[in-house]
Amino acid sequence: MHEIVSAVAGKPVIVGISAPGFAAMRSLALKSMEFGAAGVMMTPPAAMRTDEQITGWVRNAARAIGEDIPFVLQDHPTATGVVMAPRVIRQIIEENPSCVMLKHEDWPGLDKLTTLRRWQQQGKMRSISILCGNGGMFLDFEMLRGADGAMTGYAFPEMLRRVVDLSRHDVEAASDIFDAHLPLLRYEQQAGVGLAVRKYILKQRGAIAHEALRTPGPHLNEEARVEVKRLLRRLILRDPDCGATSS
Amino acid sequence: MHEIVSAVAGKPVIVGISAPGFAAMRSLALKSMEFGAAGVMMTPPAAMRTDEQITGWVRNAARAIGEDIPFVLQDHPTATGVVMAPRVIRQIIEENPSCVMLKHEDWPGLDKLTTLRRWQQQGKMRSISILCGNGGMFLDFEMLRGADGAMTGYAFPEMLRRVVDLSRHDVEAASDIFDAHLPLLRYEQQAGVGLAVRKYILKQRGAIAHEALRTPGPHLNEEARVEVKRLLRRLILRDPDCGATSS
Amino acid sequence: MHEIVSAVAGKPVIVGISAPGFAAMRSLALKSMEFGAAGVMMTPPAAMRTDEQITGWVRNAARAIGEDIPFVLQDHPTATGVVMAPRVIRQIIEENPSCVMLKHEDWPGLDKLTTLRRWQQQGKMRSISILCGNGGMFLDFEMLRGADGAMTGYAFPEMLRRVVDLSRHDVEAASDIFDAHLPLLRYEQQAGVGLAVRKYILKQRGAIAHEALRTPGPHLNEEARVEVKRLLRRLILRDPDCGATSS
Amino acid sequence: MHEIVSAVAGKPVIVGISAPGFAAMRSLALKSMEFGAAGVMMTPPAAMRTDEQITGWVRNAARAIGEDIPFVLQDHPTATGVVMAPRVIRQIIEENPSCVMLKHEDWPGLDKLTTLRRWQQQGKMRSISILCGNGGMFLDFEMLRGADGAMTGYAFPEMLRRVVDLSRHDVEAASDIFDAHLPLLRYEQQAGVGLAVRKYILKQRGAIAHEALRTPGPHLNEEARVEVKRLLRRLILRDPDCGATSS
Repeated sequence: MHEIVSAVAGKPVIVGISAPGFAAMRSLALKSMEFGAAGVMMTPPAAMRTDEQITGWVRNAARAIGEDIPFVLQDHPTATGVVMAPRVIRQIIEENPSCVMLKHEDWPGLDKLTTLRRWQQQGKMRSISILCGNGGMFLDFEMLRGADGAMTGYAFPEMLRRVVDLSRHDVEAASDIFDAHLPLLRYEQQAGVGLAVRKYILKQRGAIAHEALRTPGPHLNEEARVEVKRLLRRLILRDPDCGATSS
Repeated sequence: MHEIVSAVAGKPVIVGISAPGFAAMRSLALKSMEFGAAGVMMTPPAAMRTDEQITGWVRNAARAIGEDIPFVLQDHPTATGVVMAPRVIRQIIEENPSCVMLKHEDWPGLDKLTTLRRWQQQGKMRSISILCGNGGMFLDFEMLRGADGAMTGYAFPEMLRRVVDLSRHDVEAASDIFDAHLPLLRYEQQAGVGLAVRKYILKQRGAIAHEALRTPGPHLNEEARVEVKRLLRRLILRDPDCGATSS
Repeated sequence: MHEIVSAVAGKPVIVGISAPGFAAMRSLALKSMEFGAAGVMMTPPAAMRTDEQITGWVRNAARAIGEDIPFVLQDHPTATGVVMAPRVIRQIIEENPSCVMLKHEDWPGLDKLTTLRRWQQQGKMRSISILCGNGGMFLDFEMLRGADGAMTGYAFPEMLRRVVDLSRHDVEAASDIFDAHLPLLRYEQQAGVGLAVRKYILKQRGAIAHEALRTPGPHLNEEARVEVKRLLRRLILRDPDCGATSS
Repeated sequence: MHEIVSAVAGKPVIVGISAPGFAAMRSLALKSMEFGAAGVMMTPPAAMRTDEQITGWVRNAARAIGEDIPFVLQDHPTATGVVMAPRVIRQIIEENPSCVMLKHEDWPGLDKLTTLRRWQQQGKMRSISILCGNGGMFLDFEMLRGADGAMTGYAFPEMLRRVVDLSRHDVEAASDIFDAHLPLLRYEQQAGVGLAVRKYILKQRGAIAHEALRTPGPHLNEEARVEVKRLLRRLILRDPDCGATSS
């Protein structure tokens, strides 16, 4: 972890610390901060279902890791099955001063963004940073609903950056770029093989040394490689600045 | 349905009406009441997860079927995945005057019974009938925690009745009977095959004409029949009044 | 059902008959055929997990509805949790002569298409029709992997038709149209609200009289309507023949 | 881990090594064997669904940890959702010589035991040890179906031992003891609070120093303590040799 935090030189690193026990979470949180992380990220486990269980778990977890460590609340029902109502997120933000950000991965989740931002504008909720996940599949509209940016993976992370920046002053230009990438972005959303696609492209782009996933992860077969090349060829036509090279 | 309600002559019949759409629920509820049912039973579908979704769904469903039709709220997370906090049940009871009973099938669920009865005693919640399900696996302690009775299936339903009655004045006698039946009761808790066991015994007792389940349900193989006979033989020794005959 | 089959005059209608019991499935299948359906569709229920359980269920179900009724096998793990290996699908096709089509909704599912078509070409599997679902999110590549077409919902069903037709002789043109629709298609993939979007557009296009979903379905709020209008405006620029009118 | 293996002096210790990646599993397996474990235990993760996925995963996992390390296959669908047909278990046993035992936790699972033992007697499957889990709720019948013993937790582990031993020469005596414990055994089956019950009793019996669970685990409230005391009091009457003391 030390190497990673050093390597990104100046960029804030958030470390996911979700674990079955609070003791393990505390130990991982302390180590992360010691190594230079900007904060940690946590999400309630699958057994937390009612509003009360969810808010109680976060309260106890925040206390367990130490209330001086800033944390990101991850709202990720498609992975955990834990559904947080907007009012539950608000309560968590109010009760835990060390909660500094929401990683928004609810799906569908556009109305949740609107509700939270409205409360904030009406002074009913403390202001908080909101970054979006889920591979960026709805980043175009998430920005219009009030998100601050993206915190997710994609073979062309700079596209996410451009969409976020442009969406503040030229919405149509932001959508043009986003739409150009959507066919590939969607292809990367395939469970399992999507990550193999991402690493295959990142390797081609020189960003990583090896494209292999940790076993027993999937690998890209020939059919998929042909499809990815086709997607890249078409992408370059629509977004020549994307950074891809036709090969 | 008409035949069933007539056949039980005077015993109150509750008809489960849970369905994907409110229109179907309303139509089924009206037909049930017309045929002489004492009330209907409903449970929020799996997509209802937060406190607000659950209470909202019940409110709308109660309105949809008609607020003059008494209904039972079924709390059955092991089947639906919907977890209702005690305060959610209280809110449902407060908001819906036509909610007259709780079918308690949470698991583990003893503390939920205690919480609800405490609120009731403290005047924080309207009094309501609570009957327990889950095959009666915890009926002995559910009665001590404040349940009114059982509403579940078992090859010897009169045992449930005896335990409920005895638990009000002779707790040890109630437990003696309950414990005598527990080995068989547990055997009936096996998913799928348990229902085949129940119908096999009910057929032997002359309560039903055929033991077959609707296809594609399971049937009892020879090994299971031998085991059930053994359980019955041992049951008679401990509860000679159970109504079983050694065969 | 009679009215629907009559109304589509000549177009083949497939009726979904999946139900907990075989008796209900048989009765629904017979009624469907009587009313003029071209066939029925079924998918094994969630409790069928192993290869043997799945093939056994389909064998018994096909026999139960009558082997003279042609049926579509629906492969829909994201809805049912039942995962069918390619060899399981092949076994079902071999064992059940009345199985005439596969509705392919596995996800990710491109390699499954390739495997099935390869077996067919190698003479290892009887030829069968394959139509794709999942809202058409991968229709462009599904056609290249050997699908025969789509069987799914979208606000512009004729686009699916055009992509299917074009993909046989002009792959780039097919992708151009598909990509133009992808931003809206993806928007329609949102659980719950997606169906409201579809009905809203179909209503605007004069295809249906009312956009309301059956209660308790969601309705489109103002934010979503603005977003859909924006998606339609951008769609018309890229696919002027799509049939949408700017409003 | 070193301390634990030393502490049990001579008793074989099996270490669970299931992890998302094979590298982590290999490292944990090597460390376990180094510290004196008799073997390791693994179960396919939730994403393995078809027969082929399950057998493939185990084959690759066995190779990854090293085929000289004996392993236990855990069949635990209620925890993982992975359902292994008997023929899948047989294939795993045939393909992996280092698979030396099955931890049987399917539910209901009696027929699976019978099928596996029948294949073994017919020479269709290599002989293998089978120990049962799920808290011992069906240990009485599992022994009669051919299990070799139990590998599960209970506040009176020596009862499991006695039932296993007695079931080989005095089935009725085995059932008498088992049935005497069933009311408490069932009480310990409650998710979460059951483990608190077990540690509470083990603490009372002097087997462990502290009854606290790792946070955020549950603790026993006053109602539950009263109920456990009642269960123990009744247990002593039926099984005076159980090792409990009335307090």
